[in-house]
Amino acid sequence: MALKLYGLPMSTNTTRVMICLHEKDVDFELVPVNVFAEEHKQPTFLSKNPFGLIPVLQDGDLTLFESRAITAYVAEKLKETGPDLIRQNDSKEAALVKVWTEVESHYYEAAVQPIIYEYFVAPFEGKEPDKSVIDSNVEKLHKVLDVYEGRLSSNKYLAGDFYSLADLSHVSETHYLMQTPCASMINERPHVKAWWEDISSRPAFNKVVGGMTFGQTHQE
Amino acid sequence: MALKLYGLPMSTNTTRVMICLHEKDVDFELVPVNVFAEEHKQPTFLSKNPFGLIPVLQDGDLTLFESRAITAYVAEKLKETGPDLIRQNDSKEAALVKVWTEVESHYYEAAVQPIIYEYFVAPFEGKEPDKSVIDSNVEKLHKVLDVYEGRLSSNKYLAGDFYSLADLSHVSETHYLMQTPCASMINERPHVKAWWEDISSRPAFNKVVGGMTFGQTHQE
Ligand SMILES: N[C@@H](CCC(=O)N[C@@H](CS)C(=O)NCC(=O)O)C(=O)O
Ligand SMILES: N[C@@H](CCC(=O)N[C@@H](CS)C(=O)NCC(=O)O)C(=O)O
Repeated sequence: MALKLYGLPMSTNTTRVMICLHEKDVDFELVPVNVFAEEHKQPTFLSKNPFGLIPVLQDGDLTLFESRAITAYVAEKLKETGPDLIRQNDSKEAALVKVWTEVESHYYEAAVQPIIYEYFVAPFEGKEPDKSVIDSNVEKLHKVLDVYEGRLSSNKYLAGDFYSLADLSHVSETHYLMQTPCASMINERPHVKAWWEDISSRPAFNKVVGGMTFGQTHQE
Repeated sequence: MALKLYGLPMSTNTTRVMICLHEKDVDFELVPVNVFAEEHKQPTFLSKNPFGLIPVLQDGDLTLFESRAITAYVAEKLKETGPDLIRQNDSKEAALVKVWTEVESHYYEAAVQPIIYEYFVAPFEGKEPDKSVIDSNVEKLHKVLDVYEGRLSSNKYLAGDFYSLADLSHVSETHYLMQTPCASMINERPHVKAWWEDISSRPAFNKVVGGMTFGQTHQE
């Protein structure tokens, strides 16, 4: 399978897909997209993703965008390889994987992304982090993490006692979150902390973490 | 199959699921949740959905929340009944259904929901619609609909030449959008208009549209 992933190793949405590809131990070529030069807003890239965002996966004549759609495709295509990330053989477990993947997208990322933006992107753009944006999202994130703490006190992972796409989806954004003062929100909840230590110590994530340099490269 | 759906017939997220159940021609009991009395924030409901939101589907001992996870579960469980909403037998089509379902969630709903809120919910809460919120989301929605117009000029439906979960996911929120001045944004794009006329004329939607009275019941 000659897979091409268009994206950047520092981008959370690109690394979501990279982690999944590494879990499945599949070869792929990472094709860098120069977002700083707006390459992703040019016709060539827009023909792959009309929304002009990374990542994009090319698998032969199939072109896919949206990181969660891509990971679901990869997990299904390679269901016999590596960990079973979608639990297709058990309709209940498979449904719970979908529920908690939606949760990541609608509640967790929705709160974490603006926090990451203020701490990492705003300084890079020469702006002060906006404290009111941080505060309102911290408040939302506290509520989400309270639910996670309850859930993870009776299940080892979000969808049940198995690592799945639902957990995987959280890794890249949480990695950046842990470099902000909000790390305490994870660390002060024992089950969330144990879960984070578990999912962030998987070899697949270790293969991408070195490239997640946003904030470093650009503040120097 | 004794399915119970907790929700309200005027809620877009509840009707997303109801439309799917009607497409699959399956019996279910709609259990109303009195959100105006905050029933969804009480322990009984929170034990079904810790985020305290409707809808929730109960299928025997399985409890699911998040409307898009529920529709994916229903479409998979009942894949032999009614239209094939997920194209599981063709991995490429199935992947494109996922891509365009993500698009609905991340870009379409993200712009449409604040517009609906300002036109329907704000007046109900005794507030004037906030013009700046409407304007900024109208701008976002124009860009999204430009992509849809392009896509739908070469495909009858979003994921391809077949009606799928990706289209279905748009119906309930677009129904409310069409009751605002933003209806023109749909009507001025010929392919989007034809697509909307097609997907809104399906019998499954006709079974729920009568209950979608938000704005009516509450402004009287
Ligand atoms: N929902 C999309 C989001 C994609 C996205 O926002 N990608 C970012 C990088 S992490 C991007 O392309 N940013 C460039 C821009 O916004 O112009 C996904 O999951 O793939
Ligand atoms: N992402 C969720 C959203 C659920 C949601 O926001 N439901 C609304 C009704 S359409 C609700 O419960 N509102 C009550 C509240 O916010 O308190 C889904 O797709 O099910």
